[in-house]
Amino acid sequence: MELSRDELIRAVSSQMPEKRWKHTLGVMESAVLLAGKYGADPVKADLAAILHDVAKYWPVSEMEAVIRDNGLNEELLQHDKQLWHSEVGALVAERDYGIDDAEIINAIRWHTSGRVGMSLLDKVVCLADYIEPGRDFPGVDHIREQAEHSLEEGLIAGFDSTISLLISQRRVIYPLTMLSRNDLIAHL
Amino acid sequence: MELSRDELIRAVSSQMPEKRWKHTLGVMESAVLLAGKYGADPVKADLAAILHDVAKYWPVSEMEAVIRDNGLNEELLQHDKQLWHSEVGALVAERDYGIDDAEIINAIRWHTSGRVGMSLLDKVVCLADYIEPGRDFPGVDHIREQAEHSLEEGLIAGFDSTISLLISQRRVIYPLTMLSRNDLIAHL
Repeated sequence: MELSRDELIRAVSSQMPEKRWKHTLGVMESAVLLAGKYGADPVKADLAAILHDVAKYWPVSEMEAVIRDNGLNEELLQHDKQLWHSEVGALVAERDYGIDDAEIINAIRWHTSGRVGMSLLDKVVCLADYIEPGRDFPGVDHIREQAEHSLEEGLIAGFDSTISLLISQRRVIYPLTMLSRNDLIAHL
Repeated sequence: MELSRDELIRAVSSQMPEKRWKHTLGVMESAVLLAGKYGADPVKADLAAILHDVAKYWPVSEMEAVIRDNGLNEELLQHDKQLWHSEVGALVAERDYGIDDAEIINAIRWHTSGRVGMSLLDKVVCLADYIEPGRDFPGVDHIREQAEHSLEEGLIAGFDSTISLLISQRRVIYPLTMLSRNDLIAHL
């Protein structure tokens, strides 16, 4: 099943509160800008951005069932529920919305944690999610500044802000977030 | 070969600058205090503290050779050289100073990074290394405060200070340091 872009937008936006859809519009805008700036495919960046939070407001029990029933990464279930929607979203994009491009699917799957060896599109969507115009958290301007001159420096600043927040809240750090950060630093 | 405590002190102190030996004396003091407070063996805590930095001032090439030639953890060689002396120290304590107590050897091996599933003695020596009286770095008083009421909270504060420092210096975070921290949080 291949939906038109408009059909996709209708289907995805109906699954989340208006505020979250507004965030998604911001990610679409930032992802396309970053794609243009750093040489990624803007059409793929746009599609991945539209779909990146498709499962964000699914009930936890449904996300858990999708992860278990489809042989997805069950280690996630030991970690913060905030991480689950990326893995579920990647499956939903493929299964329910006919996205068969592996780059787009991966950019959805890794948009929260990153991964070791992030693709260009992974980086664009993940960074767009940090800096879209509606974001307003301590440190976001530093991430935006870094994003002006380097996709990787922007992402490192983004992951560092996540890790620092988790430390300040005394919460477990998802190992892959730190490994993604280390990997970006090691390759610069 | 079993050395007396005095012989051990002479042998170890001769391998480091006076300033580092002063640090070791502080770790010995703090480790014995923490052992008393939290129910670890003070004699083992003292011995592990005496030996914890035995390889700290070895030439990098010698540490590397010991790691390679003895089948130690070669992954360390991809990481900060500051981490190597713990692994080398554990081997040296056993091979050159006749320490045959696995608890002591492990406390030396894991005193910098921690590990998932730290033993009581591991925790005591690692935390003593953070808070010995000579330590003076931003945040050390917070770690000392936490150490007053919980060995684990003290260590979490210690690891958090290390991770935050590495972030501020844009350096790679040793994965085990973060995993040790996560493991302590998950078990509290």
